Amino acid sequence: MSKALLDFINQNEKTYVEELRELLRKPSISAQNIGIRETADWIVHYMESLGMKAQIYPMADGHPVVFGELNGESDKSILFYNHYDVQPPEPLELWESEPFSADIRDGKIFSRGVADNKGCLMARLQAVKAILQTRGKLPVSVKFLVEGEEEIGSPHLKSFVDAHRDLLRSDLCIWENAYGDEDGSPTIRLGNKGMCYVELSIQSMKSDTHSKNATIYPNAAWEMIWALSTLKDSNENILIEGFYDRVVDPGPEEVAVIKRVPIQEEKIKARAGVDKLLRDVHGYEIINAMYNFPTCTVCGFQSGYTGVGQKTVLPAKAVVKLDMRLVPNQDPDDILDKLLSHFRKNGFDNIKIQVLTKAYPSKTPVTDPAISYIYEMGVKAYDKKPVIEPLSTGTGPRYIFSSWTDMPMVALGVSNAGSNPHAPNENIYLSDFLSGIKHVALIIDGFSDFAKRKRV
Amino acid sequence: MSKALLDFINQNEKTYVEELRELLRKPSISAQNIGIRETADWIVHYMESLGMKAQIYPMADGHPVVFGELNGESDKSILFYNHYDVQPPEPLELWESEPFSADIRDGKIFSRGVADNKGCLMARLQAVKAILQTRGKLPVSVKFLVEGEEEIGSPHLKSFVDAHRDLLRSDLCIWENAYGDEDGSPTIRLGNKGMCYVELSIQSMKSDTHSKNATIYPNAAWEMIWALSTLKDSNENILIEGFYDRVVDPGPEEVAVIKRVPIQEEKIKARAGVDKLLRDVHGYEIINAMYNFPTCTVCGFQSGYTGVGQKTVLPAKAVVKLDMRLVPNQDPDDILDKLLSHFRKNGFDNIKIQVLTKAYPSKTPVTDPAISYIYEMGVKAYDKKPVIEPLSTGTGPRYIFSSWTDMPMVALGVSNAGSNPHAPNENIYLSDFLSGIKHVALIIDGFSDFAKRKRV
Repeated sequence: MSKALLDFINQNEKTYVEELRELLRKPSISAQNIGIRETADWIVHYMESLGMKAQIYPMADGHPVVFGELNGESDKSILFYNHYDVQPPEPLELWESEPFSADIRDGKIFSRGVADNKGCLMARLQAVKAILQTRGKLPVSVKFLVEGEEEIGSPHLKSFVDAHRDLLRSDLCIWENAYGDEDGSPTIRLGNKGMCYVELSIQSMKSDTHSKNATIYPNAAWEMIWALSTLKDSNENILIEGFYDRVVDPGPEEVAVIKRVPIQEEKIKARAGVDKLLRDVHGYEIINAMYNFPTCTVCGFQSGYTGVGQKTVLPAKAVVKLDMRLVPNQDPDDILDKLLSHFRKNGFDNIKIQVLTKAYPSKTPVTDPAISYIYEMGVKAYDKKPVIEPLSTGTGPRYIFSSWTDMPMVALGVSNAGSNPHAPNENIYLSDFLSGIKHVALIIDGFSDFAKRKRV
Repeated sequence: MSKALLDFINQNEKTYVEELRELLRKPSISAQNIGIRETADWIVHYMESLGMKAQIYPMADGHPVVFGELNGESDKSILFYNHYDVQPPEPLELWESEPFSADIRDGKIFSRGVADNKGCLMARLQAVKAILQTRGKLPVSVKFLVEGEEEIGSPHLKSFVDAHRDLLRSDLCIWENAYGDEDGSPTIRLGNKGMCYVELSIQSMKSDTHSKNATIYPNAAWEMIWALSTLKDSNENILIEGFYDRVVDPGPEEVAVIKRVPIQEEKIKARAGVDKLLRDVHGYEIINAMYNFPTCTVCGFQSGYTGVGQKTVLPAKAVVKLDMRLVPNQDPDDILDKLLSHFRKNGFDNIKIQVLTKAYPSKTPVTDPAISYIYEMGVKAYDKKPVIEPLSTGTGPRYIFSSWTDMPMVALGVSNAGSNPHAPNENIYLSDFLSGIKHVALIIDGFSDFAKRKRV
């Protein structure tokens, strides 16, 4: 049975790619409020074309959620979580083709959002389409929750989910995205880091002045540099008091799974063009660092004149974007308290803090039976065996679900280790896109049977 | 005699202001290479309209010098040094009128470059014009050296001056600019600080990546923050080894003059909107800090994403503009060596340094007789008595002259303590502009007699 489904998907590759490109050509930049509604409408129309019931849920002062569903023959259901918003495309000059042109070259499709995560979204909708076109009906119900605020920290997702728990409750959740590993293998990811993302700003005086006044007036750039230099030392130790207090060791069972994750050390280095990684880690230490170390990252620093040539100015203002990634058991509210307390204790009273994102870490146990099922379907869909990763380096709002349901939540994707998400020349392989459609189609197609087996 | 000259200047105020506005409306931004040639041509035409011999000297890979001269009746001559280039007008959103509109309101004229220093340039040319229109001839020769690269550090001025020493040699040099003090008194300034202005850049990896990779890839912003934090501590001590080695005390004679400089402490604080000044200095300490302390100033810091909202990016590049102001006897070449050595010793081998400006400190002794003469003329031209300041907080290329001639060099100006040079809403008072014309006209008019008296 599954061979016919896979053959059908192979035969329709061209259609799937063109449908994806149509979506990619719509910018939907949540941070800049560009193209949001138009993109949401497009997705609704696409869902309706499959016979799904689709609806836009507006968010007050935010970007709407698209929700689509289609009932299947059994009482089982699968929930898909995706987002239609993308990161800003800047810096534009580093793109080799226009960010929203969906250019195809060398077997890849290049576009802002193709990896993160319009490629995944379309692959899942097209998996539903393929089953409907080959079988005429779905064996299980499918529900698509597609939000428009993931790239700005999903400010309204929690209230939406909390208000619609009965609508969303399912037996499995396929999460937005997972990147293939350095070896080209697809991954199945079971957890996310948390995040506390803040904007720090200092206004040291009324306005910029001539730098000749530097002997008497306070410089916002210097004040910010001094404050930041107390947050992390050059050995990558985060110095905020109590920052590591709640960090727990991953435990022997997860460590064993992590140790099976293949690691392509040289490829990881080459990708960034570096001779060695931070802390000079090697082998298993690399994966351990990626999954189990929290971070404190300056994502942006702006102060004074940064144009061509020189300007002798004393900056009155400095703004920094700071991203702290949290490992399981850390808590963004607690970390924020500790940051505030750190600045207070160290005399940096003039720093204003605006919280842009708070997200909690979350993970599904590696022992859940659904993991093996999804792994088996992955073996059928891809040329390479999937790799199970108990955590991921990324952050996402899955904690919003895991706080009230124990349904297994599994991240899958169509992108690869060189997909450049959030960076110029974001891309996916067309072959990964097709395999992604197949994997999800197989998961939907066999899930009712799997659930029956599990019950025995 | 001088009353007729002053009356004539009063009667022609409107003409002078309109001529100035015409010049102000020409952007001439050296850092961005905007409007340079057009502005130089305008000045040549203006000089020619006065009967001066005027010429443009092109600079290879640079902005041209305008030189104009007119012979007088005696063998004495006065050299005027000015520049026609201006700073970039950014940040544009903080201007209350267009930066190049030369808007007049509340008795002031607002424009980028009006204080620094097109106002001075026009006042001096118009002083010449007034004498010619009232007397028909000049008692001494005048020479105008007007460069187009002052705001980018005068890279070609030295070679021009060295090649034309005989042309430039004079008995007095009136320097480009001096700002009125906090009390509204005009100032006569006898010295400049030096400068070493560099751009620092770090490229930590090939390109920006997702901030989730912060556990393994190096962050250029952090590396820059750590490096900068070793240059200056939060008590304003510059930590570059040997930085203060060549600093000498100003000596009792100059200290006495400095102590006579009136200081409006509350006005200085209010101008920046600060409760206290750096190091919490008061009274004479403020002037002492301004004139006798060298600086190490971050003028700009750019790294990663600094737009609206959040972007979870790990920056590959960080660029900083660093301005070190040097007091007499410090040497920018020496300071640059020390900076390089500091970074090397502290392990910051990946910082690239591009030198944008090197300028030496320079001053004329307070005991030179020309100082008293200029002071007396100032008493006649202004409502308030001028203040003699043996040094200034600013930097300029006067060392290029003082290295080969001992002619007195005196900075005068038409701007005030709230003129906002290099900042939004740059302005001068129309009344200061008119007084500036009078002061220079009186200096030219009486200089031959002064020189004769001096000889006796």
